[in-house]
Amino acid sequence: MTVSDLRTPAVLIDKARTLRNIDRMQAGADARGIRLRPHSKTHKSPEVARWQLERGAAGICCAKLGEAEVFADAGIADIRIPYPLHPANADRVGALAARTRLSFIVDHPRVARDWSEALSRAGVTVDVLVKVDVGFHRCGIDPDPATALPFIRAVAALPGLRLRGLLSHAGQSYHATSEDHLREMATGEAATLRALAEAARADGIAIDELSAGATPTARYSLQQDGLTEYRPGNYVYFDRTQVGLGAASLDDCALTVLARVVSKPAADRLVFDSGSKTLSNDSARGFTSAAGYGAVVGAGAEVMPTMNVLPALVLERLSEEHATVRVTDGATTLEPGDLVRILPNHACVVSNLVDQAWLLDGNHVTPLPIAARGRIA
Amino acid sequence: MTVSDLRTPAVLIDKARTLRNIDRMQAGADARGIRLRPHSKTHKSPEVARWQLERGAAGICCAKLGEAEVFADAGIADIRIPYPLHPANADRVGALAARTRLSFIVDHPRVARDWSEALSRAGVTVDVLVKVDVGFHRCGIDPDPATALPFIRAVAALPGLRLRGLLSHAGQSYHATSEDHLREMATGEAATLRALAEAARADGIAIDELSAGATPTARYSLQQDGLTEYRPGNYVYFDRTQVGLGAASLDDCALTVLARVVSKPAADRLVFDSGSKTLSNDSARGFTSAAGYGAVVGAGAEVMPTMNVLPALVLERLSEEHATVRVTDGATTLEPGDLVRILPNHACVVSNLVDQAWLLDGNHVTPLPIAARGRIA
Repeated sequence: MTVSDLRTPAVLIDKARTLRNIDRMQAGADARGIRLRPHSKTHKSPEVARWQLERGAAGICCAKLGEAEVFADAGIADIRIPYPLHPANADRVGALAARTRLSFIVDHPRVARDWSEALSRAGVTVDVLVKVDVGFHRCGIDPDPATALPFIRAVAALPGLRLRGLLSHAGQSYHATSEDHLREMATGEAATLRALAEAARADGIAIDELSAGATPTARYSLQQDGLTEYRPGNYVYFDRTQVGLGAASLDDCALTVLARVVSKPAADRLVFDSGSKTLSNDSARGFTSAAGYGAVVGAGAEVMPTMNVLPALVLERLSEEHATVRVTDGATTLEPGDLVRILPNHACVVSNLVDQAWLLDGNHVTPLPIAARGRIA
Repeated sequence: MTVSDLRTPAVLIDKARTLRNIDRMQAGADARGIRLRPHSKTHKSPEVARWQLERGAAGICCAKLGEAEVFADAGIADIRIPYPLHPANADRVGALAARTRLSFIVDHPRVARDWSEALSRAGVTVDVLVKVDVGFHRCGIDPDPATALPFIRAVAALPGLRLRGLLSHAGQSYHATSEDHLREMATGEAATLRALAEAARADGIAIDELSAGATPTARYSLQQDGLTEYRPGNYVYFDRTQVGLGAASLDDCALTVLARVVSKPAADRLVFDSGSKTLSNDSARGFTSAAGYGAVVGAGAEVMPTMNVLPALVLERLSEEHATVRVTDGATTLEPGDLVRILPNHACVVSNLVDQAWLLDGNHVTPLPIAARGRIA
């Protein structure tokens, strides 16, 4: 099959670009002796995870137990869940830990104690890392040693849990306003982890791992001292936001959406068949504001194979099944039936909207099942 | 199974409320002799569609061919696709028309001609309606008879197409700023359709159907003269936006998300396990601005069965798997492990994120497959 045989809309994954992205990030981590553990949330595909592992990754990350179960079923042997799992799911954690090397995070005293009780009762010991808040203010303990050390010490002493180290995610990097700002975030994150690890070690607690990870900061984080692991996810495909944050060029972006013009109600308005059910309502982030719900990067006779942004076509409004596109220069030769290619603002959420993407190899396409899609629990 | 047995997050559908919503809208349409043809996009479930048909609906709507194929497989006999399908899919339309009563919309001269050629070649005739833009400015022809009539006349004359009438969607009603504004939109929509139909009839063109449909305007649209069909979708479950638009009360809302507190990093911050992969990033609409990505309507010991908004818990930020919740009064007794129930801003997109919801009957739950989920093409 080729691209022109596809029903639209369809999610395309450029295989050569994906492999190049994997190789580059791996080389960056290898050069610094940092283990790469990609987050699978972006692709949710055991096939792509195997490419990452074959090229040197130490394991993968999953966001939820349901995702981890899919990857374990596919034979992935080392899965870290950087998510504050709750012991209500102790049965599933026990079952997963019996068939894969599993680890997760803790950030709350009572939850850690409840995990310890549940796992001890089951006769299981599972690796955990303490989640540290490095400025995103989502999960994680405050890194002030005065309050952090008692928690870390308590976790280290709990049966059923084997403390491996500290883990952070600089999610605030998605809101960085400049290159300098990004660099400061990466530097600050590593310094925070190192300081807390040193305090813990001085207190006699073994801290073997310092794990950080976010695609926007990767180019700076991999230059920091002390990190043992990095966990980027989005880098495998990149997207419009990563281009806006300087983490990728347009030619690195591997995930695009093939869509079709289905209406042209006015000379300055087109309607594409790709709405929020395909592109999501996520807006673009980056140093400069990027209008609309994705960038048109190919259209009509030039829909493939290269990518060039067509700035006059703005995806101004998404309904569930329509993109209403304003033609800002007032004139387009596109007509209903013409194909367009869209670079989404956020690749991870696009993967989560379809059961199957299409792997693009030249102009040929083959199905790429997104086996862990929708595993929210 | 009961609610407390569920893995979180989980999408709950209250069966009694759903049936009551179906009955009320049906009664409103019946009282005016208007055929009700619910849009299935909100539930994407053949089971719920059958409830609507058993209670008097004349047929259903689907947004995409892939959805229509699922409902046809389930035996639904009359399916309207109020979407500007493109003849690239003529093979699928022909196959569907052979096994169900199928209709769709046209709004572009070349597309209508191409449909006529493709369907004539296949020896098929399919019902179509002309889509009229009544102010949403997405799809549809301008209702000015000077430009609209030539198009309607051309469609009426095309072999392979059987012109049934005119169709509109007042999607602008989601941006209404007051009750009066909503009423004006409903009145204006019906007046526009009637005027164009009269002009077409005066021109000798048979216009048997005038079809409108949107949940926010339903209470006014069903009072208008001349409409033969109404196509609301969201009314089956309603959501926070419909409450904000005065279309529903909290006690009408049938779809909620059961989630769990998984972290409490500070006294004024909770983290729920329901992110944008469960709730979507859609914001709330309505006459008054409603903060956050959903309303907490139950928590802890009072998570079920009644719904009361807890205004001090604001779902301020969604990551894919986390809701970061600000506790605006600075104090909550909720702790990790506690269950919460969330009324989403937009029910339709939540249905589209999970393969299966849970039908809630009292405190008992049974699986409700969302068979047409993700059928974007």
